[in-house]
Amino acid sequence: MSRFIRVIPVHEAVSRLLSIAPDPGTEMVGLSGALFRIPNEDIIASHDMPGFARSIVDGYAVLSSDTIGAGESLPAMLTCTGRIEMGSADPGSIVAGECRYVPTGGMMPEGADAVVMIEYAETAGDQILVMKPVSSGENYVAADEDFTSGEMIIQSGHRILPQETGVLAAAGILSLPVRRTPRIAVIATGNEIVAPDQVPRPGQVRDVNSIVCESFIRQCGCIPLSLGIVPDEPDALTAAIQEAVVQADAIFISGGSSKDDRDATARVIADLGRVLVHGIAISPGKPTIIGEIRNRPVIGLPGHPSSAFMVMRAICAPLLAAMSGITLPEQHSSATLDAGIPSAKGREDYVRVRLREGVATPLFSKSGLLHTLVESDGYVRVPAESEGFETGLVVEVILW
Amino acid sequence: MSRFIRVIPVHEAVSRLLSIAPDPGTEMVGLSGALFRIPNEDIIASHDMPGFARSIVDGYAVLSSDTIGAGESLPAMLTCTGRIEMGSADPGSIVAGECRYVPTGGMMPEGADAVVMIEYAETAGDQILVMKPVSSGENYVAADEDFTSGEMIIQSGHRILPQETGVLAAAGILSLPVRRTPRIAVIATGNEIVAPDQVPRPGQVRDVNSIVCESFIRQCGCIPLSLGIVPDEPDALTAAIQEAVVQADAIFISGGSSKDDRDATARVIADLGRVLVHGIAISPGKPTIIGEIRNRPVIGLPGHPSSAFMVMRAICAPLLAAMSGITLPEQHSSATLDAGIPSAKGREDYVRVRLREGVATPLFSKSGLLHTLVESDGYVRVPAESEGFETGLVVEVILW
Repeated sequence: MSRFIRVIPVHEAVSRLLSIAPDPGTEMVGLSGALFRIPNEDIIASHDMPGFARSIVDGYAVLSSDTIGAGESLPAMLTCTGRIEMGSADPGSIVAGECRYVPTGGMMPEGADAVVMIEYAETAGDQILVMKPVSSGENYVAADEDFTSGEMIIQSGHRILPQETGVLAAAGILSLPVRRTPRIAVIATGNEIVAPDQVPRPGQVRDVNSIVCESFIRQCGCIPLSLGIVPDEPDALTAAIQEAVVQADAIFISGGSSKDDRDATARVIADLGRVLVHGIAISPGKPTIIGEIRNRPVIGLPGHPSSAFMVMRAICAPLLAAMSGITLPEQHSSATLDAGIPSAKGREDYVRVRLREGVATPLFSKSGLLHTLVESDGYVRVPAESEGFETGLVVEVILW
Repeated sequence: MSRFIRVIPVHEAVSRLLSIAPDPGTEMVGLSGALFRIPNEDIIASHDMPGFARSIVDGYAVLSSDTIGAGESLPAMLTCTGRIEMGSADPGSIVAGECRYVPTGGMMPEGADAVVMIEYAETAGDQILVMKPVSSGENYVAADEDFTSGEMIIQSGHRILPQETGVLAAAGILSLPVRRTPRIAVIATGNEIVAPDQVPRPGQVRDVNSIVCESFIRQCGCIPLSLGIVPDEPDALTAAIQEAVVQADAIFISGGSSKDDRDATARVIADLGRVLVHGIAISPGKPTIIGEIRNRPVIGLPGHPSSAFMVMRAICAPLLAAMSGITLPEQHSSATLDAGIPSAKGREDYVRVRLREGVATPLFSKSGLLHTLVESDGYVRVPAESEGFETGLVVEVILW
C-alpha cells in the first residue's frame, strides 16, 4: 500500500459505487406496511370499483325522463316508494313516476338513471316535487366508473403515498410485492473505542460513528445492522466483515483515523474481495475506501466523525438512494458568506456552515471535534474546479 | 341542527383548532430512539470532551520549544522514546529533547504541547528529524476543547439530526426526555363500510378513510390508533369516542357522507363535549366538524375519501404539526394551468392537479371517486379572495 493516496474525483467515486449497487430484490408487505414502499410490479384492480351504482349526493333516485321540463313553477311530481338504507344490498327498483330516497353513498335502485339533490326537491306527503331537471347519469357513479377490473391502480416503481394506501384498501389489496428494504451493516473499528454505555478511561472515547451511520441509514430509508465495535486487528475485522456479508446488502466500516488503521482496513477488504477506490478528492474524507466483497459494496469511512458524516452525505447517500429507491430530501437556501472558504483546485470541499438570516458562517475547526456537527445548519459544497469562495459571495446552502 | 351550514374561513378554523391543541407532554427515549425526536429540555454535557488531550494527526508528540527554527536544511533532532498505542491510558511523558509517536486519536504524553505530522519527520534509528517547527497547541485537541462539562449539546425544542445522535453517544447520554409522540385515534363510521379484508356485498364499500388517516398521521410524525368501523348509530359512536378519549390525544372521525350522518356525528360530539366549528369555507370539505371533548380536539372529516384527505392537508396538518413539533415537509413547483379553475369568492378551493413538464392539469371529477387520489401529483390552492384561476396562469403546485 503506497504512502501517498492516489485520489479520484467525487463524481467518479460515486459512479464506481453506483456501478456495484446491488438490487435488493422484492419482499411482500401487508397493506398496513405499504406506506412509502415502492411496488416492484404494477398494482392492478381485480374488480370494478365502486362495484355498484352509487349516489354521490343526498337525494331522490329518479328516471331522468320524468324530470324533463321540471321547474319551480311546474315541478315534476313523483311518488316516493321508500328510503334506501346505507349498505343495503337491496335498493329495490323504480318505474316511471316513482322515486326513492337515497343517501350519499347509497346504492341506486334498479331503473333509476339519475339522482335529484334534496336541495331541489320538496316533500308533500308521499309525493316528491322535483324543481329542476336532471340528465341521465347525473349525481351517481356507475359500478366501474372509478376503476375497471384490470385497470392499473399504482405503477411499478412509484412510492406509495398516504392517500394511495386508501385506494389499495378499496381494491382489497391486502399484500403487495415491494422493493426489499436494503440492510446496511455497520462495523466500528478502533482499540480506543468503547460503547456509549461505557465510561471511557483516559485514552478511550465512546463510539460515535456507529450511531451516526445507523441514523443516517435510517434517514435514507434503509435498515441499519450494527455489528458492534471490532478491535484494530485484521482477524477480528475479517470475521466481522464475513458476518456482515451474510446479513447485509452493503457494509459501512467506520475505520480508524490513523493511516495504519486505514491501510489495515484496505488490506482486509482486498483479501476478501477487491478495493476499487482508496482516496477521494474530497475534504473532509480523502482517505475513504470503496471496495466490493461478494457483490456487496463496502465503504471504509474516515475515522473522524465529522469527516465520516460528510462522506455519508456525499458518497454513501447516492448508493443508498439507488438501493432503496428513496432519495434523501434536500432543502437548499441561498445565503451570503461572511467569511471566505479556501479550497484546492481538483478537490471538492464540503464545509459546514451556520445559517442566520441569510448569512452563512463557515465553521472551520480542528478535525476530530464533534462541535460542528451540532453547531451547523447545513453545508456548502465547493466544486472541484473552484479555488474557493470569497467573502460576500451568495452560495447555496444544503440544509440538514 | 340547522339545514344550512354556517361556514367559517379556513384560517379561522385552523386557528380555533390550534387554540385547543393539547401539549403531548414528555416521554423518555433511549439513545437508539432519539433520532428525529425533540428534547423537552436542554441536553447538557456532564463531563469534558474528549476528556483527554488527543492527537488529531499521525505524528510525533513533542515540546514545541524543541522545534523552534527547525527546517529541511537544519532539522531538529529528537529521541523517540516509543509509540503510544490507541486506547492506551498510559501515554507516558516526555521531556525536552524527546518525542513519542502518537497515532491520530491517541492520547498525548505528559509534557508534550504539540504534534509534528509524520509528513514533516524522518526516522534515523531512534532519532527523529523534525523538518518544520510546530507551535504550542498544534495538531491536538485539549481535554475540554470539544465540549466543556456543563455546556449545552442540544437545545430544547431542536429536532435531533442523524449527526447529533453521535454527539449524544459521545457524551454518554443513554436516555433523554423528549416531546411525547401524539397518539391520534381514528374512527370510521358508516353502515356501508367493511374492513379491507372483507369482500363487500353490493351496496357496501371497503373502508378507505381509516388507512388514509393512519398513513397521514404517520407522515405527520404521530402514532395512529385505529378504533375500527363503527355503525351509524349514536350509542356506538359515543362508546368509540369515549374509548378514544382515554387512549389518544386527538380524534379523527371519518364521518358518513350524508347530511344525516354528519348531523348525528355533530350531535354526539356536542353531547360529549362541544362543537366549535360545523362547516368550513373550503372545497372539498365544507361539512367538516371541529369539536373538543375532555381537552382533546375531535375532527369530523367528510365521508368522501378525496374530500377527507384534502381536509387533512388543509386543517389537520397544522394541528398535528403543533402537537408533534414536526412540520410536514412541503415541496412546491411552479406550473402553467392548462385549464381554468372556477372558484366562489369566500371559499378556498383545493384542486388536485397532474403535473407534466411544467404544465398543471386540474383533475375535476365526480366527488366520491378515488381516481384523483392516485392520478394527481399535488394540488393548487385557490385563496378565498379569488374567484378562480384562468387557463395559462402560472400557479404554485404543492406536491404530495
